[in-house]
Amino acid sequence: MQEKLRPPMIVVNFKTYSEATGSKAVQLARNVERVHKETRISTAVAPQLVDIRAIAETVEIPVFAQHIDPIEPGGFTGHILAESVKEAGAIGTLINHSEKQLKLSEIDAIVELARKKKLLSLVCANNPTISVAVAALKPDILAIEPPELIGTGIPVSKAKPGVITDTMTLVREINSRVTILCGAGISHGEDVAAAQKLGTQGVLVASGIVKAKDPYMILREFADAMKH
Amino acid sequence: MQEKLRPPMIVVNFKTYSEATGSKAVQLARNVERVHKETRISTAVAPQLVDIRAIAETVEIPVFAQHIDPIEPGGFTGHILAESVKEAGAIGTLINHSEKQLKLSEIDAIVELARKKKLLSLVCANNPTISVAVAALKPDILAIEPPELIGTGIPVSKAKPGVITDTMTLVREINSRVTILCGAGISHGEDVAAAQKLGTQGVLVASGIVKAKDPYMILREFADAMKH
Amino acid sequence: MQEKLRPPMIVVNFKTYSEATGSKAVQLARNVERVHKETRISTAVAPQLVDIRAIAETVEIPVFAQHIDPIEPGGFTGHILAESVKEAGAIGTLINHSEKQLKLSEIDAIVELARKKKLLSLVCANNPTISVAVAALKPDILAIEPPELIGTGIPVSKAKPGVITDTMTLVREINSRVTILCGAGISHGEDVAAAQKLGTQGVLVASGIVKAKDPYMILREFADAMKH
Amino acid sequence: MQEKLRPPMIVVNFKTYSEATGSKAVQLARNVERVHKETRISTAVAPQLVDIRAIAETVEIPVFAQHIDPIEPGGFTGHILAESVKEAGAIGTLINHSEKQLKLSEIDAIVELARKKKLLSLVCANNPTISVAVAALKPDILAIEPPELIGTGIPVSKAKPGVITDTMTLVREINSRVTILCGAGISHGEDVAAAQKLGTQGVLVASGIVKAKDPYMILREFADAMKH
Repeated sequence: MQEKLRPPMIVVNFKTYSEATGSKAVQLARNVERVHKETRISTAVAPQLVDIRAIAETVEIPVFAQHIDPIEPGGFTGHILAESVKEAGAIGTLINHSEKQLKLSEIDAIVELARKKKLLSLVCANNPTISVAVAALKPDILAIEPPELIGTGIPVSKAKPGVITDTMTLVREINSRVTILCGAGISHGEDVAAAQKLGTQGVLVASGIVKAKDPYMILREFADAMKH
Repeated sequence: MQEKLRPPMIVVNFKTYSEATGSKAVQLARNVERVHKETRISTAVAPQLVDIRAIAETVEIPVFAQHIDPIEPGGFTGHILAESVKEAGAIGTLINHSEKQLKLSEIDAIVELARKKKLLSLVCANNPTISVAVAALKPDILAIEPPELIGTGIPVSKAKPGVITDTMTLVREINSRVTILCGAGISHGEDVAAAQKLGTQGVLVASGIVKAKDPYMILREFADAMKH
Repeated sequence: MQEKLRPPMIVVNFKTYSEATGSKAVQLARNVERVHKETRISTAVAPQLVDIRAIAETVEIPVFAQHIDPIEPGGFTGHILAESVKEAGAIGTLINHSEKQLKLSEIDAIVELARKKKLLSLVCANNPTISVAVAALKPDILAIEPPELIGTGIPVSKAKPGVITDTMTLVREINSRVTILCGAGISHGEDVAAAQKLGTQGVLVASGIVKAKDPYMILREFADAMKH
Repeated sequence: MQEKLRPPMIVVNFKTYSEATGSKAVQLARNVERVHKETRISTAVAPQLVDIRAIAETVEIPVFAQHIDPIEPGGFTGHILAESVKEAGAIGTLINHSEKQLKLSEIDAIVELARKKKLLSLVCANNPTISVAVAALKPDILAIEPPELIGTGIPVSKAKPGVITDTMTLVREINSRVTILCGAGISHGEDVAAAQKLGTQGVLVASGIVKAKDPYMILREFADAMKH
């Protein structure tokens, strides 16, 4: 049975890294699960679509798709159906990652679709203004990731603390319930602690874990830096 | 071990139909395989991405992805990596289906990528002119599907035989090696026989099989109508 | 010298109708100007890009572009530069019309660009949720247009009064300054009066005027139904 | 009355450079016309949409749009109608520039639309394979521009002569009538002469002219290097 996702949380985006494809993806997911079991901090993974089922069958932590399309079952060759990722074991989906930016009307439709299909919606936003716009769409989780920091190793919680506190304030004015994560450049436990101090309820990470020599070690460091 | 794909062939596109999602997709793939075993006509399936691995582990007929993106491993959240579908067991991919139309430069890049990664490229085209343009990109397989007939039950081999013979002539002038399929509206064995008579080397089918009461029966009819 | 735009206002979107292309577009703009001169209600036009200069040189009412791209001067063949429409005489631009839907990050960038270049931003939205999201981006003007009513002759102010009042309430909670228009299906003076009664500050109209036998007559009816 | 376009030709793409926007665009077009008048080499301009009419009213050389959309008159806010650019005085359009890449089906539809509306189609292609695919669509003019050289000042005719000769050979096998231009990095008269020696019938240029201190001088050098 899958564990529930509870703040504070660490969501690991596998992107399309070769270190997180196929059997390596399953192994990585095991390490992410191990950190949860040892620390009781909520951890989750967002693997490539093709790997969702194998991972969901292997680990008990929550699995997200990286994207779904705003469609119902039918003739949509090459698209991603909510039902397909759900049946494979995903409990939610990333939406509008800065590497997969969507139309405003699509984000709205996918958040609504996820709600209807009982999938968690985790929508990414690039700056405070966009974060507020996203919050208005009432997703379950909002992740703020300034795209110019993604993959740089410069943590958003340090380089742009103002971005996060501004976002928190503005978002809370119109949406008191959305879970707020931050991402981009998170590489050390202290970055995670800094993010939490700013009021966020977790982090969305990718290369910092996926491309680490020992992903387990780094993720454990992240989790240990988090306060329940 | 997977069977090789040899003309004449029947490729079944699962699209995002609910009748071809998850465990139903695996069952459908089994039926497609059964027809191959009984008739020795090459059959293949193009399931949704999430279902590729489960199907490739279950059946011995070739499995295609419905789409891959023109990317190498890296930071491409929500995209489809050639390596991921290959490791999951796919031996090729559909490209530019009329429900997932691509930029010309993307089609070129994906055909090239597929060649490099040793995946078969099956590119769809809507009309004779576009078919010739696609043939110039040297894919392994070209499928001509007039989009106005898709899902109608009116077979392209009957409604538009001229479309197919024109395409054959023009395509062969610049590409003598590409395998040519036709699709759209194929519903009966006689449609398949008609298509073959026009010189095509197989069919790309979807709703005619997927939404049939007894997909095995219809597909068997298709295969029986084909000449080796 | 151009007239200023002041609520209540009527903005006429010329779309790509043949009745509003080239010399016919100039003639139509003259009729829209005439209604302003006679009634002192603010009227504005959004012609096709190619016709902006000729219209801006002919009439004194405000002219909007139908779209600009989020770019600075440079190598962007085929794109629409803010500077180019401004130099031609436009004082603002439509953004994210339901027939030209944009990525959330693009809408944000274009609103910001318009502010910087001193162009008015008029952003379209399809439903209350999207309207609130758009309001968070702080455009000058927000137009709500349920796409299922566009071009039907069924006025949004009658078919969906709840859509408009909901939008007003939600939008005002996070943005007290944006001018709110409504659109879709507005065909008679009573539709305009109904829209104004619901609290909107004007209408965005298209086929109701452009395709009318006598656009001046209808527009005059609209303006007469409005209260200053 | 407008001059006819005859090989060899020089087509100047104004892109969205500030040096080629508004009144500067008109001035630049005059200089391009002057070179034609002095040398009798065919020259043409592709200004921004907003500037087409003013330029077409000022000069007698052919004017191209930088893009049109595959649409008929109707409800397509923010799109570019063939009729609108034609009525403004354009005699043709660029299609699929590497900065405005299109779907294969769109290129096909726009070439067909241009033919129907009696506009010349000038389709850009990035490499030999894509050039052959484009040639299959039977445009009036084909311009090959390796995108990695655009704006670099390294002429395609020197850096990649093989690209051009390969293209010539392959294209001529399936299309004996299309006019073939080359572009990217053309900066000196000798580049133009080299391109012509390789068999091309003209050049498509942009920054080399638009951003030159004296565009007339450089363009005159280009024209003088061309043989009638």
